[in-house]
Amino acid sequence: MMHLTPVPSFPPIDDAFKARLSRLRELVDEVLIPLEPLLLAHEHEAFEASLAKARKQMQAEGYWLPQIPASHGGQGFSLYEHGLISEQLGRALAGHVACNCQAPDAGNMEVLLERGSDDHKKMYLEPLLAGEIRSAFAMTEPEHAGSNPVVMSTRARREGDHYIIDGHKWYTTGADGAAFLIVMAVTNPDAPPHQAASQIIVPADAPGYTLVRNIPVMGETGWGHHSHAEVRFDHVRVPVSHRIGEEGEGFKIAQERLGPGRIHHCMRWLGICARAFELGAQRAMARQLTADKTLADQQVIQSWLSEMRAEIDSARLLVLDTAAKIDREGQYAARSAVSMIKFHTASVLQRTLDRALQIHGALGMCDDTPLAYWYRHERAARIYDGPDEAHKQALARRLLRDFAS
Amino acid sequence: MMHLTPVPSFPPIDDAFKARLSRLRELVDEVLIPLEPLLLAHEHEAFEASLAKARKQMQAEGYWLPQIPASHGGQGFSLYEHGLISEQLGRALAGHVACNCQAPDAGNMEVLLERGSDDHKKMYLEPLLAGEIRSAFAMTEPEHAGSNPVVMSTRARREGDHYIIDGHKWYTTGADGAAFLIVMAVTNPDAPPHQAASQIIVPADAPGYTLVRNIPVMGETGWGHHSHAEVRFDHVRVPVSHRIGEEGEGFKIAQERLGPGRIHHCMRWLGICARAFELGAQRAMARQLTADKTLADQQVIQSWLSEMRAEIDSARLLVLDTAAKIDREGQYAARSAVSMIKFHTASVLQRTLDRALQIHGALGMCDDTPLAYWYRHERAARIYDGPDEAHKQALARRLLRDFAS
Amino acid sequence: MMHLTPVPSFPPIDDAFKARLSRLRELVDEVLIPLEPLLLAHEHEAFEASLAKARKQMQAEGYWLPQIPASHGGQGFSLYEHGLISEQLGRALAGHVACNCQAPDAGNMEVLLERGSDDHKKMYLEPLLAGEIRSAFAMTEPEHAGSNPVVMSTRARREGDHYIIDGHKWYTTGADGAAFLIVMAVTNPDAPPHQAASQIIVPADAPGYTLVRNIPVMGETGWGHHSHAEVRFDHVRVPVSHRIGEEGEGFKIAQERLGPGRIHHCMRWLGICARAFELGAQRAMARQLTADKTLADQQVIQSWLSEMRAEIDSARLLVLDTAAKIDREGQYAARSAVSMIKFHTASVLQRTLDRALQIHGALGMCDDTPLAYWYRHERAARIYDGPDEAHKQALARRLLRDFAS
Amino acid sequence: MMHLTPVPSFPPIDDAFKARLSRLRELVDEVLIPLEPLLLAHEHEAFEASLAKARKQMQAEGYWLPQIPASHGGQGFSLYEHGLISEQLGRALAGHVACNCQAPDAGNMEVLLERGSDDHKKMYLEPLLAGEIRSAFAMTEPEHAGSNPVVMSTRARREGDHYIIDGHKWYTTGADGAAFLIVMAVTNPDAPPHQAASQIIVPADAPGYTLVRNIPVMGETGWGHHSHAEVRFDHVRVPVSHRIGEEGEGFKIAQERLGPGRIHHCMRWLGICARAFELGAQRAMARQLTADKTLADQQVIQSWLSEMRAEIDSARLLVLDTAAKIDREGQYAARSAVSMIKFHTASVLQRTLDRALQIHGALGMCDDTPLAYWYRHERAARIYDGPDEAHKQALARRLLRDFAS
Repeated sequence: MMHLTPVPSFPPIDDAFKARLSRLRELVDEVLIPLEPLLLAHEHEAFEASLAKARKQMQAEGYWLPQIPASHGGQGFSLYEHGLISEQLGRALAGHVACNCQAPDAGNMEVLLERGSDDHKKMYLEPLLAGEIRSAFAMTEPEHAGSNPVVMSTRARREGDHYIIDGHKWYTTGADGAAFLIVMAVTNPDAPPHQAASQIIVPADAPGYTLVRNIPVMGETGWGHHSHAEVRFDHVRVPVSHRIGEEGEGFKIAQERLGPGRIHHCMRWLGICARAFELGAQRAMARQLTADKTLADQQVIQSWLSEMRAEIDSARLLVLDTAAKIDREGQYAARSAVSMIKFHTASVLQRTLDRALQIHGALGMCDDTPLAYWYRHERAARIYDGPDEAHKQALARRLLRDFAS
Repeated sequence: MMHLTPVPSFPPIDDAFKARLSRLRELVDEVLIPLEPLLLAHEHEAFEASLAKARKQMQAEGYWLPQIPASHGGQGFSLYEHGLISEQLGRALAGHVACNCQAPDAGNMEVLLERGSDDHKKMYLEPLLAGEIRSAFAMTEPEHAGSNPVVMSTRARREGDHYIIDGHKWYTTGADGAAFLIVMAVTNPDAPPHQAASQIIVPADAPGYTLVRNIPVMGETGWGHHSHAEVRFDHVRVPVSHRIGEEGEGFKIAQERLGPGRIHHCMRWLGICARAFELGAQRAMARQLTADKTLADQQVIQSWLSEMRAEIDSARLLVLDTAAKIDREGQYAARSAVSMIKFHTASVLQRTLDRALQIHGALGMCDDTPLAYWYRHERAARIYDGPDEAHKQALARRLLRDFAS
Repeated sequence: MMHLTPVPSFPPIDDAFKARLSRLRELVDEVLIPLEPLLLAHEHEAFEASLAKARKQMQAEGYWLPQIPASHGGQGFSLYEHGLISEQLGRALAGHVACNCQAPDAGNMEVLLERGSDDHKKMYLEPLLAGEIRSAFAMTEPEHAGSNPVVMSTRARREGDHYIIDGHKWYTTGADGAAFLIVMAVTNPDAPPHQAASQIIVPADAPGYTLVRNIPVMGETGWGHHSHAEVRFDHVRVPVSHRIGEEGEGFKIAQERLGPGRIHHCMRWLGICARAFELGAQRAMARQLTADKTLADQQVIQSWLSEMRAEIDSARLLVLDTAAKIDREGQYAARSAVSMIKFHTASVLQRTLDRALQIHGALGMCDDTPLAYWYRHERAARIYDGPDEAHKQALARRLLRDFAS
Repeated sequence: MMHLTPVPSFPPIDDAFKARLSRLRELVDEVLIPLEPLLLAHEHEAFEASLAKARKQMQAEGYWLPQIPASHGGQGFSLYEHGLISEQLGRALAGHVACNCQAPDAGNMEVLLERGSDDHKKMYLEPLLAGEIRSAFAMTEPEHAGSNPVVMSTRARREGDHYIIDGHKWYTTGADGAAFLIVMAVTNPDAPPHQAASQIIVPADAPGYTLVRNIPVMGETGWGHHSHAEVRFDHVRVPVSHRIGEEGEGFKIAQERLGPGRIHHCMRWLGICARAFELGAQRAMARQLTADKTLADQQVIQSWLSEMRAEIDSARLLVLDTAAKIDREGQYAARSAVSMIKFHTASVLQRTLDRALQIHGALGMCDDTPLAYWYRHERAARIYDGPDEAHKQALARRLLRDFAS
C-alpha cells in the first residue's frame, strides 16, 4: 500500500540499493512489527526467543550489521545509506536490535574497530559483531548534569599496570546482561577537562562492579537491551591494557562516535515518525464518527497530518544532507549540522507522536499500538546525549562567530 | 447583541477555611507524598496497607469526603471550596483516593445521592461513602469514538422485571476490585439519541460480567483504583430496580455529574501543576552546572518557570471562577466555561509537565519523581471525557450563536 | 517554606458601576469605533476634529479621566474599576485618548499629582487634566537596551540653580505636539545605578530641544498622540525646580507609575482582544464558503475561536486579580503578578490578533478593519516597557528565591 | 563575511553557476540592499530612479529574467537553479523587481510564452520582457473566499467577436501603473466549475476599467509594483482574440503557473529568512547589555538563532527538493510537495521574522531595517494564493488516499 518515501537524489542511489530498501520494508512489516506485542506486554522470554529467530532471518537476508565494513561481516554501507536503512528499521520497536546495529553496541563496535587493540577485537569485538554478547557504555553520572559531560566523578587510578576504578553511573543502557562495559573515567585529573578521561573496558564479571538496579524509566524497568541501569564501580581492578586509545583520549574517542551516532538516532526517529504518521492516517480513515464520516474528514485531523508530513519530510532532508556531508567531508565539516539535527529531529518526533496518539484517542493511551511506548520512552530524545538547551547554545555560539563585527 | 463580559466574583473564604487548607497542605507533604514511591514501584500490597492508614488519618483530620454533605458523613464544602481542596490533594499521586473523593467513585456517589433509590443508597452508597467498597462507571466502548458518547452498542433489553445486558466497554477505571459498576446501556433504541440510554447498577459478581483485562495503559496494567479495565457483559441479568432514575435518563444523569466532575479534574490537574512547578524550581536551584552556577541561572529555564507560573495562575482563576459560577447560578449557566476549562487546563498541564520533566533531565525520565508518571498518564487529560477537538468544536458553536447576523 | 497560593478575592461591583460599563460599551460602539476609518486613512485633520467632538461627549457622559480622583476632575475609580473601564475603551483605536487616559499622559498625570510641586500642578498638570495640552515621557535611548533601563547616557548637569541637559532619546510617544516632556536624565552619575537619575520637566519650546523625526514605526510616522519621536537635548537649560521629587529619585518615581500603568496597558490589550474576537466571530459567520457553509463551519476556525476565548478569559482574570491586589495591598505586594501579566497578556494579544487576521483572509491584511493596525503596532507589546525576555528573567529570579535549599 | 549556504548536491551545480550565485550575493549587498531605505521611506520617485539604474546593472551582469529561456532574452535557468537565484534576490526588498522576475509579471510572462498567440507575444510579452511595461493578474474577488477560487462573480459575456466583462476584483498586485491585466472571468457559467472561466487580456486603457484604489495594506497604499489594487470592470469590451488559450481553460492555465510560482515565492521567502537571520545575529553581537556582555550571550537569543537555523535549513531543502522534482518529473508528480512547501515555508518565515524583530527590540518596530516591512507585509504569505488551512486540507485529502482500507 505504501510506497517508499522517495530517496533524494543527493548521492545517487542505485537500483540495487533501492531494492534492498524495499525488501527491508517488507521484512520490517512482516517479521519485525509482529514482535512488538511481546515486547509491549513485557513477555521477556517469548520476545527474546522470537527476536533470536528474527535476527537469523535478517542476517540471512543480508541486513546484519549494516553499518560495519564487509571485511568484518557487515554490509559496508556509507553513513548516508545506513541512514536510509536505519529509517526503515526505526519503523519497528525492535528494528535495530534485529540487525545488531542498536545503541550502544553499534557505537562500541565502531570504537573497538577504529581504536581497539588486537586483543580487544578478539575478546570483545568479534563476539559482539557475531551477536553472541551485548555491551554497554557507562558515561552519565547522577551527580552531574548531562549537559556538561566533562564534569565527572568516576576515577580510574593507576596502580602498576592496573587501573582501580571507583564511580557511580546511571542510564547505562543495556548493562543488564551485557558482557562488558566501556567506562568513561577520569585518569588524568590535572589535565585540561577534555583530556582528563579515558575509555576503559570493564568485564561485567569484574569484582567490585555492581548493577544496582534497572532504573524504572517511565514505569518500566525493562530487561536486557531494553533497560537502563544504575551501576557502581567499587575498586574495580582492570589491566591497563583494557584502556582504549591513549590515556586522556576518552572525550576525543567519544566525539568520534558522535556524528555517525547522531545520524543513526535521527534516522531511527524519522522511521518512528514514518510509522506514527501511517498509524495516524490509518486510524483516521478507519475510525467511524457517524455513518458516513470518519475521523479523516475532520479538518483539524487533516491539518495535523499535513503539518506532520511537512515537518517530517523537511527534517528528513536535513538529516540525510548531514549524513551525505559527513560521508563526503568528514564529521568536523558537518559539526554544526550534527548539532542541529539532534534537537530539531527530536522536536519533530515529539510533536508527531503527540498528534498520532491524539488521533488514536483512548486507544493511543494503551499498549495495543507502539505509540504510547514511543510517546513515553522517546521523550528522552530531547534529553539524552545532551539536552536540547545545551545543543542550541553550542550551535548558536558557533553560528555567531561569523557575525563578530 | 453582545453582553458585557461578566465581572468575576469569587466567594469570600474565611480564616477557618484557610487554616484547613494550610493544614491539608501539611498533611499532603507529610502523609500522602511519602506514599508515592510505593505506588511508582508497583508495590501493591505495601501501598494499599499504607494508604489504608493514611485514609484513617485524613478522616480523623476532617478531610474525608470533602465533596459530600455533612449529613452523609462528608465535609459539605461548596464546589468552589472543594476545588481548593482538590488542588491541594492533586499535589500527591494518591491525594484524592486518600480522602475518598477519587474518580469515578466521587461521581457515582453524587449520582446515587441525587438519584438513587433508598435501596441503592443502603446497598451501594453507604459502603462507598464509608470507603468499604469501590465502584466503577462503564461508559466508553472500544468500537465507538469517545467524542460522540451517544453512539453506543451496549444494550439492556427488558425481560419482565429484569434487564438483560450485553456489551463491551473499556477504560472502565477502577473496575478491578470494584464491588459494582454503573453501566450506561441503551434501553430505548428507538428514542432520540440523547434519550436512548439508562444507567444501571451491575454488581461485580453478576453472572455474565467479565473483567477481560486491565488495559496496559502507558505500559502499566496497574491495579485496583489505579487501573483501567476492559469488561464484557454477556447476558448479564439485573432487576429493573437497579436502574438509576427513569428509563432513558442515562445521558441526562451523566450530564448532571459533568460540571462538578470537571471542576474536580481541573483543580486536581492544577494541583499537579503546582507540584510540578515546585519540583522544577527545586531541581533548578539544586542542580549544579559548574562550581558557581546552577540550572536556575540559565535564562531558558527561567523563562520556562515564568511562563509556567503565568499559565498556571491564569488557568487556576478560570477554573475557580467557573466553580463559583456553578455554585451561584448552576451548571447550565456555566456550561461554556465548563467546556473551556477542560481543554485549556489540560493543555497547561501538559506543557507544565513537559517542562518540569525537561528541567530534571535524565532524572525526569525515571520514576524517582512523580513527573514521569504524570507525564505519561495525564496525557489522557486531552482525551478522556471527550477529546480537546470535540470540546473546542462544541464550545465554538455555542459562542458563535451570539454572532449570527 | 511554601505558602498556599492565595485565594482570589475580587471586589464586588455594584449595579451603578455595571450600568456605567454598559453605557460605555454603547458609546464605544456608537461614538468611538466610527472614528477609526479616519485614523486608519491618515486623515489627520478630520480625525482630530472628530476626536475633539467625541472627547466632549465622553466628558459629558462622565467618562473623562476615569483614573483621576474626583477632586481633580476625574471619575475616581479604583485601579480595579479603571481596569474594567480600560478594557471597554480598548475595543476602539481611539478609546483612551477620547477619555484623556492615554499613555503617556495618564502616567505623567499620576506622577505630577503624587510628586509634583504646586507650580508643576498649576503649569502642567491642570491643562493636561483639562485636555488642553499633551505631554511626553522621554526615557528610552537608541544606544542602550531597553531591558536594562538604568544604563542611560542622557545627563543633566547642575549649573547653579539650573540643569543643563544633553542626550538622545527615542520612542518618545506623543512628543509631536506635546507641550512638555518629562525627561529621565542622570543627575548623580556616581550614585548606585538605581539612584543616579532624576525626572525633569522640559517644555517643548526650550532652546536646544529638537524633535528629530517621528520614527517610521511599521511604515507609519503618524502624528500627535499617534507617533513616536526621536528627540535630542543639546544643552537644554531648565531651572532645578523643574525636577520632580528629589534628586536621584528618577527610577523610584518611574517604578511607582509602573503597576497602574501595567494594568492600564493589559486591560487595554484585553479590550483589543475582545474586539478582535468579535470581529473574527462575525467574519466567520458572514463569510460564505459555499451556498450552505460559512467559515464558521470550519473546524479549524472553531478551534481557534475556542482557544482564543479560553486564553482571553483566563488572562483577563489574572490581570483583574492583580489590579484588585494592588488596590488592596499596594504595588509592592503585587510585584510578581505585575511582571507576569505584562508578558502573558502580550502573548495572548499577539496570538489573538494573528488568528483574527487569518480568519479575515485578504481583508485582514488591509486597513478596512483595525486588525492590521493592531497586528503591526501592538507587536510592540512584547517589546516596550521591557522585552518579554527581561520580564521573564526578573520574575523567575523572584520566584526561585522561595526554593533556595 | 557570510558564506553561501551550501548547495545540496541533488542536481549537480557546476562551478560556473556557483560563481554566478556568489557574484549575485555581492550585487544584492552592494546594489540592491542600498535601495531599501528609499522604498521604506515611501520616496517613490527617488526609489524608481535608483531602481531603473539597478535594473540596468543587473541586466549587464547577466541576471535579467533568470527564469526565462535564453531565446527570449532570459538566463534560461532550470527551476532548481532559479530557486537558488530567487533565494539570493529575496534577501533584498527590491531583489526580484530589479531582475524583472517579480510577481505577477513573472507568471504573466510564463503564461504568454507558453499559451499566448503571436499577437499577444508581440504586443504584451515583448515589452514585458524588456522591462518597458508592467502587468497585473486580476483573480481574487472581495465577495468570495480566496480558499475556493472557482467561485467567482466576474463574467465575460460573448457578444460577436468581443467579450463584455463585468466584475469586481481586489488584491490585484501592481495594477497601479500596469499596461495590461490578465483577468480571470467566467465565460462558461454552465460548465463544471473548473472549466467555467477563461483568462483574458485587458489593456489598462480599456473603457470601463477602473482602478478604484490602491488598498491600504498594513497602512500603506504603496505605488506601482508595490501596491495592491481594487479594480472594477464595467462593461469592458475586448476582442475575443484577447483570450489566452481556449475558452474555459482559465483554471487549467492558472494551475500551470502554480508549481513554478510556488518555488519562486518559497525561495524568495527563504531569502528573506536568510537576511532576517543575518540581521538578528548581527544585532545580537552588536547590542551591548553591560560592559562585557552582548545580547548574543543570552541563552534565549541563542536558542532562537539555533531554532531559526534548523527551521530555515530544513525548509530550504524541502523547497529545493521540490524544484528539482518539478524539473525532473513535472508539476503533476510534485503536486503534494507543492502544497506542502507553501504553508510550511510561510510558517517558518513568520516565526523567523517575529524572532529577528524581537531581537532588535524597539529598533525592530521601525523602518530603519526591513524587518518591520516584512513582518507586516509578509503576513500575507499565510493568506494569498490560498490560506494555510485550505492547503493543509487539500494536501491531507491527497495523502489520506493511500490509507483507504
